[in-house]
This record gives sequence, C-alpha cells and structure tokens, in this order.
Amino acid sequence: MKRNDIVIASIVALATLGNYSFAAASKEPIQPIEPVRITNPAMVELGKKLFFDPRLSKSGFISCNSCHNLSMGGTDNLKTSIGHNWQQGPINAPTVLNSSMNVAQFWDGRAGDLQEQAGGPIANPGEMAFTHELALDVLRSIPQYVAEFKNVFGSDKVDIDKVTKVIAAFEETLVTPNSRFDKWLKGDKQALNETELAGYNLFKESGCVGCHNGPAVGGASFQKMGVVEPYKTTSKVEGRSAVTGKDADRFNFKVPILRNVELTYPYFHDGEAATLKQAVDTMGRLQLGKEFTDEENAKIVAFLKTLTGDQPSFTMPILPPSTDKTPQPKPFD
Amino acid sequence: MKRNDIVIASIVALATLGNYSFAAASKEPIQPIEPVRITNPAMVELGKKLFFDPRLSKSGFISCNSCHNLSMGGTDNLKTSIGHNWQQGPINAPTVLNSSMNVAQFWDGRAGDLQEQAGGPIANPGEMAFTHELALDVLRSIPQYVAEFKNVFGSDKVDIDKVTKVIAAFEETLVTPNSRFDKWLKGDKQALNETELAGYNLFKESGCVGCHNGPAVGGASFQKMGVVEPYKTTSKVEGRSAVTGKDADRFNFKVPILRNVELTYPYFHDGEAATLKQAVDTMGRLQLGKEFTDEENAKIVAFLKTLTGDQPSFTMPILPPSTDKTPQPKPFD
Repeated sequence: MKRNDIVIASIVALATLGNYSFAAASKEPIQPIEPVRITNPAMVELGKKLFFDPRLSKSGFISCNSCHNLSMGGTDNLKTSIGHNWQQGPINAPTVLNSSMNVAQFWDGRAGDLQEQAGGPIANPGEMAFTHELALDVLRSIPQYVAEFKNVFGSDKVDIDKVTKVIAAFEETLVTPNSRFDKWLKGDKQALNETELAGYNLFKESGCVGCHNGPAVGGASFQKMGVVEPYKTTSKVEGRSAVTGKDADRFNFKVPILRNVELTYPYFHDGEAATLKQAVDTMGRLQLGKEFTDEENAKIVAFLKTLTGDQPSFTMPILPPSTDKTPQPKPFD
Repeated sequence: MKRNDIVIASIVALATLGNYSFAAASKEPIQPIEPVRITNPAMVELGKKLFFDPRLSKSGFISCNSCHNLSMGGTDNLKTSIGHNWQQGPINAPTVLNSSMNVAQFWDGRAGDLQEQAGGPIANPGEMAFTHELALDVLRSIPQYVAEFKNVFGSDKVDIDKVTKVIAAFEETLVTPNSRFDKWLKGDKQALNETELAGYNLFKESGCVGCHNGPAVGGASFQKMGVVEPYKTTSKVEGRSAVTGKDADRFNFKVPILRNVELTYPYFHDGEAATLKQAVDTMGRLQLGKEFTDEENAKIVAFLKTLTGDQPSFTMPILPPSTDKTPQPKPFD
C-alpha cells in the first residue's frame, strides 16, 4: 500500500464517522490543501532570509526568489529562467508553492526532496553559479546569520546541510489553502459556478485527473510528454531519462502541480504554452487524443482558475548585513 | 532664507517652548527621522506592487526592487548595478531608503523628485530596457491593476504619470526612524556608548557634517568628489556636469545619504570603497585633508553604524496575474 493510498483510506475511514461534506470530499480525486502548521518558527524565519538572499549566488544578484518569485505564484513567469550572466536556462522554473507535495523535485525528479533540491541552483553554473563552499564562506562571515544558525541548531557550525534544511523548512510553509475549489470540496457548493463545475467534471471525465490528482493536482508521478502524438519542441531537455539512464524514460517529466496554475504561466517544461487555453488544448490532443471544443476548453480553464489559493503572506525579510570580512560578490568575473 | 534654514529656525523656535531633549536635538546638525504617516494607503499599496513588478522591464525579470532591494538597505550591495542582459551599469545604485529627503534624485540630480526618477530606469536601455508605452500596455492588460488605478485615481485610464506617482508614493513611505542615534538625539543619552559618541564628535569637528547633515545625514547638496586631492577612479561618470553642462560641475555628485550606511555598502558613486573604514579614510583625505588614525576611523565607523533605523516592514506584495492579452516578456531578444 502506497503512502497516498493509506492517506486516502484513512480519509475514507474517517469519513464514515464524519459529516456529509467531508465524505463528499473523500470521493474526489483531488483533496483540499490544509493550512500549514509551523512547528519551528526560528528555522522557518532563517530559511526565509536565505531564500531571499542573493549572496548565495556568485553575482550577489540572484536569490531563490529570483526564479521562484513569491509575488508571482512562486515562479518567474518566463519560458525558461535567467541565470548568472543572463544565461538562458534550459527549462521552465516550476512553482515552489505546494512543492513539498511533489514526489520528487525538478522536472526530472533528480532531487528526492526539497532539501536536496535547494542545494542545486546555488552550485549550478547556469543558475546562481556559486559553490556550496563559497556560499558558506559568505554566511559564516555574517555574525547575525551565525547566531541564527546557533539558535536553530544549538551549534554555530554552518554547513550546507543546515543551509538547505532551513530553506526547505521555509518552502514547506508555502502552501496555498482556501482556494474556491477547496471550499467546494469541503462542502460549500456555492463556491463554484456552473461553468466551473462543468469544467471540473470535464477534467475528470476526459482523463486529465489520471495524472493531475491528489492535493497538489499533480506532482505525484512522472509521465511521458506526448502519449498519443509526440510533443514538438526545440527544447533539448529529455526529462527523466537524464536521471535513470533508461531510454524508456525519454520525455518523461514530473506532472506539474496545477494548484495556482492561473499564476504559474507559461506552461510545460519548455514554457511554450503561453496561455491556459493553449495548454489545455495541447494536453487534450497529445496526452488524451481529445480535441476540446472552445466551449469545453473554456470550462476547463474556468475550473483551473478556481485552484488559486491563499498566497503565502509574510513580512519581507530584512537580511543581516555583510561585514568587512564577507567575500564580495563577483557579478562580472 | 533657504528651506532648510527655515526648518532649523522653526525647530529652534519650538525648542524654546519644549523640553530639554527636544532642545538638545535642535542644536545638532542632524535631525531625527520621524515615522511616516500614510495618508493614501490604496495608492501606497499599488505603488508597492509596481515597485516589485518585473513586468515593468523588457525581460520580465528586473523590478525596482532588483537594484533597490528592501531586504538589503534599499540597494543591491554591488559596486555598480546589473541591467538588462547583464549589462554592467555605470554607477552604484543609491539607496531608496529616506530618498524623499534628497534635494534631487540620481547621483547627478537629473530628476527633480522621486516621481521623475521612477520613470528613468524603466526606459533606460541599460537598466530595465523597456519603454513607458510598452510598460503601460502590460499594466492596461491586467484587470486587477486597472481596477486599482481606478480606485486610487477615480479613472481607469493608466498613464505613466500615474504609474510614477504611485511608485513615488510608496517610496515616500520608506523612511527609517528609531535609529540609536535618533534616540540619542531625542534625549536618550544611554542610546550611544562612549566610542560612538566620540565618533559623532569627530564627525562634527572634522567637518564631515559640513556635507552630511540634516535628517538624512546627506542628500541635501551637490559636492565635488575630490576637494583636497583628486579622486582616482576608472569610472567614466562625471556627475553633475552631465546635467548642467558646466565644466565647474565635473565630478560634482549629490552627497549620499548616510542613514543606514551600514547596510548600503559598497560606497561612493563607483562603489569602489568596500568598507566603511575605507570610505571614511578616503573621505578624510580627499575632502577634508585629514588622515584619521585607525582609532579615529573606528570611532567614526562606530558612530555611522548607529544611523541604522527601523527598516520598512511590510507584507510581500502578491502581484495580479497577466492575462492572455498581456504582452509577453522578451528576456533574450
């Protein structure tokens, strides 16, 4: 029994004791997102600072938030991202919102969890272009950071494991409950209008829900991009096969999260679908062999827009200043 | 009688009626920063969104906050800024904090006020590389922005005058009261320690205060960089003469604000002074003909660090999403 199955079984079991609305939710292939409970606020606060700190990059200009902008659905809203020295990245930045629900991180799943992911961009020459050791030199030179690490971990030793752990702890708080769709799932039948509900039913009946399910409406599996007909793109990225080495995994990508999809344009691993209309059309044809009419497409898009939840709300962090000993950024080397 | 003199005269006049601490403050060449009173919160909120919105740039990647980062003292902490396509800017980004107190904006004062300044970087090919018209096309395509402009101005017509006006309104809120130095000015004689107070006295007696005075501890005049001996730099920027066309204004720059100077490194228009120690040393020699001893230098630096006030505290803005009609960013064109 997989973890997801256990959760669903538990919900069903609970539902037999519960009220109607809870029982109704348990029958749907999508589950509501629950608000996060922060158990270690000092760790989350430190992680928030590091998420916003461009000193983790060689240039001193690029932070996690540059490409996973929390003002913009946890993405950069670009086809592919901009890295150090304005390098064009190979792939569309996936949203950090609700990303703790992903089966693995990155489009190809090469990181098992958020902590493993967090170390990637820092040391990627095409992204933040730094090294872990140089990033640590920066952090260790800033007494306020050292004090915060000591407060969180009981030791003033700053290492990459702690850095990525606190960033991941912050990212785990970035969930988006209370979407209109979740209100509907929880029993408020007025939360969706007729068009949106018809769109949801089409989403289920057409088979979209086969991959886009669970609380994140995706993120739970790898699937081939281009099942019924091949996906045409100039992107050279081949997805999961880069991790497994298996030819069968070519063009397999992690199914993207559809939560807040209204905010996370453009779509697909190459960012080539500018609009939800285009994305729904392409998905229908390539993955399901279906040509949605304009009316059907509009209904599904209307449903998708009900998946926008409460965006993370927090005070902009104030970063501790560098000191005379802090290595200086090198944006133009 | 200049405006500043009138203010000082008024303070002195008031002080004769007031309490001791107020009278004490009135005798000093630096005045405390008072907290801002927000009279039009809807305008400020809209301005905050625009300040953080990278869709005002051609790339969709650079916002006002990219170079005037409110997590980092309202600067980018780089020698010179990074613009569109990673272009190296000609000059050090001045802090936006307390910038409403500047006599004019930019190092050369080419903008009379914050509103005039706000339009500059958007259309500067080396910075955000957009045009005002293209930026307006983006904003007009986003219904939530149009609604907010209507709410603020009573009309849904979005023009550059309104855009820069609301950005300036937000920037006017970015003041930093309650520094330890201000507490001392207001009568809390425990707010500074002996070293810091000795540093302040040196700052006054040595003549630093001749240019760095008023509530912003600078920003009130243009002065020549290199009075006693010339400033050596590879920077080609010549300052105020670019605006006035007068040879006498070559290497005249607006005196930078020293509020929060601990956060706004590196220093000078070319960013070549990495540390406060270096900046104080250079200023002493070039502007005042003084060689500060290490001890004197350290005292002045200790004083300067007491000028760090409360940083602006606000909720990270959530930007309204683009629509299918929104022109797409062009980062790599």
